[in-house]
Amino acid sequence: MSTHAKIRLYVEHPLGAGQTVPLSRDQAHYLFGVMRQVVGGAVLLFNGEHGEWRAEIVEAGKRGGVLSCIEQTAPLRLPPDLWLLFAPIKKARTDFIVEKAAELGAARICPVQTDFTNAERIRQDRLQAHAIEAAEQCGGTYVPHVAAMQRLEKTLSDWPANRRLIFADEALVGARAVLEAAPRSDKWAILIGPEGGFSPTERNRLHDLPFVTPISLGPRILRADTAAVAALTLFQATRGDWE
Amino acid sequence: MSTHAKIRLYVEHPLGAGQTVPLSRDQAHYLFGVMRQVVGGAVLLFNGEHGEWRAEIVEAGKRGGVLSCIEQTAPLRLPPDLWLLFAPIKKARTDFIVEKAAELGAARICPVQTDFTNAERIRQDRLQAHAIEAAEQCGGTYVPHVAAMQRLEKTLSDWPANRRLIFADEALVGARAVLEAAPRSDKWAILIGPEGGFSPTERNRLHDLPFVTPISLGPRILRADTAAVAALTLFQATRGDWE
Repeated sequence: MSTHAKIRLYVEHPLGAGQTVPLSRDQAHYLFGVMRQVVGGAVLLFNGEHGEWRAEIVEAGKRGGVLSCIEQTAPLRLPPDLWLLFAPIKKARTDFIVEKAAELGAARICPVQTDFTNAERIRQDRLQAHAIEAAEQCGGTYVPHVAAMQRLEKTLSDWPANRRLIFADEALVGARAVLEAAPRSDKWAILIGPEGGFSPTERNRLHDLPFVTPISLGPRILRADTAAVAALTLFQATRGDWE
Repeated sequence: MSTHAKIRLYVEHPLGAGQTVPLSRDQAHYLFGVMRQVVGGAVLLFNGEHGEWRAEIVEAGKRGGVLSCIEQTAPLRLPPDLWLLFAPIKKARTDFIVEKAAELGAARICPVQTDFTNAERIRQDRLQAHAIEAAEQCGGTYVPHVAAMQRLEKTLSDWPANRRLIFADEALVGARAVLEAAPRSDKWAILIGPEGGFSPTERNRLHDLPFVTPISLGPRILRADTAAVAALTLFQATRGDWE
């Protein structure tokens, strides 16, 4: 039994001293089948609320198991209040964007359907599982929620107060300058368009909205997945939790 | 025949007014077989030296073809003098890093073999082809050279004067602060470690070298491919061609 548990699991269960945590069938399969853990082994748990806890395996079965929390190993670290809106593209690149958003620390991931989005639907449960796996691997104590896909127009109509939306456009203003100049009180969202770009209607609509700021991501044309990682990075380094 | 040619091809041939450019077998297959172009069609060409040129197809065959340059459509835009050193990982993620380095504007891509690098060799020609494809797609007029894989230790021993090397470590100094504080005259390189991190020997060596600066890429553990995109982004937004 190692006290330096490297296996991290996200659980939907309260964590605290002496708290016992039941495992789902999938988690039991992963922990005991794939990772060959046995009773007495140590696992790190987080639930997005109570930080990270070292737990000991007290029951191990084929269809379930029970862990017992020993001590808190890290406090809860919420990411900045940043949403990532993106138009789902090819499966591999969509998975990638969700993985990177969890890794880079977005609070919420919102797939949006734009005029040039091919995907009619997404597998929300599969994307959420990707976000969980990324959070488990990156040492995060929080998992961003993957929202249901919504039409971009509806998202913009229902936009909440006090949240700015930046989107990459052929604008002249660099992303960094925009992020550094805005009031500290702002909440943020990043909108990444589909590979084919926004439709003229959408671009006009975005430029007209008072809460939207177009930004530049440099002189080359970035793919949607690159743009997502680049914009998240610039946010974190300027307004987020990287400094 | 459209004057708004969207097909972009990298060629290893001089470009200039009236210059004719022969096509390789692969390029002829792509242009005439896959993209169904015919004599009279327009293509954008770049060679990393003479900017981007609109060219007309003057001969089209199964095994080759000839283009003729009409007019320059964009000047040469060299990326900043930035090298990306990375330890090759799984094939898909290695391809991804090369694609992103070309897209984000690195001048040179250097695969390095570290103590914890699994890959013994790389397909340099395949990675170079990836860089070319990415440059063609992102509107760049330059293709970063993919160097042969070298041992990290050899790379560090032969390090050129006046080039700083930043690498992501458990350092406390944010990447942005490091980049902003350094003299404008510096040339740069970014070193991304393998998924398993650097060995203790390598970390000590890196920390001892006068041209190396450790940086932080935030509180979560980034995968190698994410770290590469994030570091390239921060460089471009701070010292590069994004502002």
